[in-house]
Amino acid sequence: MQMAMIGLGRMGANMARRLRRGGIEVVGYNRNQEVVTTLARETGLLPAASLAQAVAQLESPRVVWLMLPAGEVTERHLQDLIPLLDPGDLVIDGGNAHYPDSVRRGELLAGHDLLFMDAGTSGGVWGLDNGYCLMVGGSEQALQLVRPALECLAPAPDRGWAHVGPVGAGHFTKMIHNGIEYGMMQALAEGLALLKGKEAFALDLARITELWRHGSVVRSWLLDLTAEALVEDQGLADIAPVVADSGEGRWTVLEAVEQGIPAPVISLALASRFDSQGKADYSNRLLAVMRRAFGGHAVGKD
Amino acid sequence: MQMAMIGLGRMGANMARRLRRGGIEVVGYNRNQEVVTTLARETGLLPAASLAQAVAQLESPRVVWLMLPAGEVTERHLQDLIPLLDPGDLVIDGGNAHYPDSVRRGELLAGHDLLFMDAGTSGGVWGLDNGYCLMVGGSEQALQLVRPALECLAPAPDRGWAHVGPVGAGHFTKMIHNGIEYGMMQALAEGLALLKGKEAFALDLARITELWRHGSVVRSWLLDLTAEALVEDQGLADIAPVVADSGEGRWTVLEAVEQGIPAPVISLALASRFDSQGKADYSNRLLAVMRRAFGGHAVGKD
Repeated sequence: MQMAMIGLGRMGANMARRLRRGGIEVVGYNRNQEVVTTLARETGLLPAASLAQAVAQLESPRVVWLMLPAGEVTERHLQDLIPLLDPGDLVIDGGNAHYPDSVRRGELLAGHDLLFMDAGTSGGVWGLDNGYCLMVGGSEQALQLVRPALECLAPAPDRGWAHVGPVGAGHFTKMIHNGIEYGMMQALAEGLALLKGKEAFALDLARITELWRHGSVVRSWLLDLTAEALVEDQGLADIAPVVADSGEGRWTVLEAVEQGIPAPVISLALASRFDSQGKADYSNRLLAVMRRAFGGHAVGKD
Repeated sequence: MQMAMIGLGRMGANMARRLRRGGIEVVGYNRNQEVVTTLARETGLLPAASLAQAVAQLESPRVVWLMLPAGEVTERHLQDLIPLLDPGDLVIDGGNAHYPDSVRRGELLAGHDLLFMDAGTSGGVWGLDNGYCLMVGGSEQALQLVRPALECLAPAPDRGWAHVGPVGAGHFTKMIHNGIEYGMMQALAEGLALLKGKEAFALDLARITELWRHGSVVRSWLLDLTAEALVEDQGLADIAPVVADSGEGRWTVLEAVEQGIPAPVISLALASRFDSQGKADYSNRLLAVMRRAFGGHAVGKD
């Protein structure tokens, strides 16, 4: 099998490496050409200096995998690809697009007789060695074109990837996966903070998280990573208490509102991240002012 | 090593089995004698018809492990044990006691020159084969008496058990573990409900949860169990949508309030269980009445 990987950032580069290890011929393109050259030397992928060059090195039906930031960057590359491709060629978006965008893009490409798949991709920096978890949406025809790549990227050919539904279903499933991740992380962090807060017991959080990895109900990959991080430093005094959020958590909460189905814990995990970003400061200032107004309570100066 | 296991319910019986498999001599006592007789035949444990008989079959320093419902039952057995024991004997509470009770009991027993340990025990019905995760509080002296049993009950002698601090620290750690469990379960359930609610994609939840077990960020033992349950039935129409709560979730939330440290997701996961038990019905009736009052909106009859 041969395919192009467009976007060789942290995720795309590692996926290209894993594909190369699996013997798949990969044409690589990245805005920054140095990245391409270095990766070509390291993995034997075929470098391309432009989208057109990348496409030109593939035989039809072509398989082009986008691993780009969601939103405008993905959109622009897709629009640029359309005139370069021939009917029957396949574009896969492995990024974190919002699923309605993927549905729209699937229809757009179908109008040009092009195939489209959305592949929600989980695994982070560990995917290179452990394999990626891939949630794929699209047609059966498209699936057959990319199947060898999925079997190579996944932890094993027969597990860790699945064709979950039509175009859009892959990114939808990945979005919900990330929403769950927000809630699980938050629950773990809150509990560990209460362990830390119980000063009378002087608990060793590195020891306890390591302990929980074996036989407990909360054992999980997130716990594994947390236990490892706490071995080095459990005071965390040098880590700013600010948690970023990417699109997926927000989209999951919007989805819950649209479906009219409660997702309280996932919603609150997202709100807690906003809070950590200082986005509750204004409401907290207001509360301080109200307490001063009715009770004469002191208000601090920022 | 020899020890008594007091309480041979689902947890105690399986722990006795695992201890017997590990070659530890176990004296067993249970309110229902049939259970004791059956387990004695099955595992070779030494049956006792009373607490006194159980204690009499042990040599000093005795090790007596309580595996009883938290609260009154544990308290009564402990009070009954005190006059039967000699200085230097050890009582371990492996149940789910609230940690301040364990601290108090430790002091009570110390007043009689008896040792006490609290052993938070996780692993449920899977512990028999996989081993239990044990969070143990107490003195170093007490630990040495029970150490062979801990090494046998845990998944491996060198992991899955830990001496986490003084008396009380074991049950405290287990309490927080369960609080985290509430939040993780709730996040997982909410996300899966949104997958289910997306009817347009007709997603196969059994397939997706199985997929997530390999390489995803949310992989966890709770996901493993959920994936297995969904294979048999993903409609869940026969399962009442009511989630019980035991003490540990409530205690974790009380602890957060006492520490003045936010645990929003764990608190809300607990509230969601109350809600499922119909405990939000009255406030929901009130909301319906308010909407009728200001907007003339229809109110249903129960």
